[in-house]
Amino acid sequence: MHRKVMVVAGVCLLAGALPFLLRSVPTMHAAASGAPAYAKNGDLLPLADYREWIYLSSGMNMSYSPKAADTAAFDNVFVNPEAYRNFMATGTWPDKTVMVVEVREAESKGSINQNGHFQGAALIGFEAHVKDEARFPGGCAFFDFHSPTTNGNLIPRDASCYSCHADHAAVDTTFVQFYPTLLTVAREKKTLSEGFLRADSGQPIAGK
Amino acid sequence: MHRKVMVVAGVCLLAGALPFLLRSVPTMHAAASGAPAYAKNGDLLPLADYREWIYLSSGMNMSYSPKAADTAAFDNVFVNPEAYRNFMATGTWPDKTVMVVEVREAESKGSINQNGHFQGAALIGFEAHVKDEARFPGGCAFFDFHSPTTNGNLIPRDASCYSCHADHAAVDTTFVQFYPTLLTVAREKKTLSEGFLRADSGQPIAGK
Repeated sequence: MHRKVMVVAGVCLLAGALPFLLRSVPTMHAAASGAPAYAKNGDLLPLADYREWIYLSSGMNMSYSPKAADTAAFDNVFVNPEAYRNFMATGTWPDKTVMVVEVREAESKGSINQNGHFQGAALIGFEAHVKDEARFPGGCAFFDFHSPTTNGNLIPRDASCYSCHADHAAVDTTFVQFYPTLLTVAREKKTLSEGFLRADSGQPIAGK
Repeated sequence: MHRKVMVVAGVCLLAGALPFLLRSVPTMHAAASGAPAYAKNGDLLPLADYREWIYLSSGMNMSYSPKAADTAAFDNVFVNPEAYRNFMATGTWPDKTVMVVEVREAESKGSINQNGHFQGAALIGFEAHVKDEARFPGGCAFFDFHSPTTNGNLIPRDASCYSCHADHAAVDTTFVQFYPTLLTVAREKKTLSEGFLRADSGQPIAGK
């Protein structure tokens, strides 16, 4: 299932990216220990063990536009453990950080649940945000995946992911403002971006 | 902040438990490696590193009664890594499994988010479900905490947590039906409870 505009806590799943199109090349091998690894064609190799990484937060039906989401869905964000521990010590991300967002359809009536929503088995989006300073212009890149076990395709640099994260992210192009346990650390370590601090205080962002 | 009836994915935060009342005894030391450890008075020692455990799932405003929640909130469920790995191999929980649920207030308008919800910094509930076969009648117990860094108080056995989990839980008194990645494993390993399978197939649960 595709969502036309999918915007989630931490990583943009954007209209142009079309997550889950069958355009990955065959899988070679999984990236080890959360460090990013690439295929010869530039794809990001699968991040098969991401559910054992560190959980950052979830959102439900988040949208950065006035239009509400068409499909009820949760997004869950994970980061590789080494990067998490570094963030907790320094308030920012080391090189080779990999963040993953998975989007799952929300269910409501099921088993004994009568109100609210829980997460269903159907994955409807899967993307990664990779910090690799030597490899990418600007130091990071986004990849979208057909599934967690296939390779991820590089999202082109003119996609709105890049400019949105550059302009609005609280720390180092990542949406730490939506990760409650990290936001506290970033405030303590004074690593919040100038753009975020201006917006947070109600001042206009420079150039906007 | 207290919620009168708080029912979440995996662990009951029930009316009688009154999470976050200031009735913990002073903290002694944290439990190591996720294995449960207890104070002399029977309290569960703090589970301070639970945010580095394995994430199972989140719900939003889940309720097992027809009444909708008063406060918009997310629940996030975590389990100690050793227990998770055992579950993925066997479809059920080993002795000394500890599951944690944290409940966080949901926020809507913030930073660039205009629709849907993300998780705020305010923790409004924190409970644990402990499997310790030699210690507890029935093999498990629930504890509620004032905060993740204080001791947890044993919830009395006549609380509805115990009977609800015994009657409705998909695997070994735990609500695996709300943890999508585990439910798949339990189906494969054929560890789903008889009560859950009957309810899932629309048949009445024996004795109900």
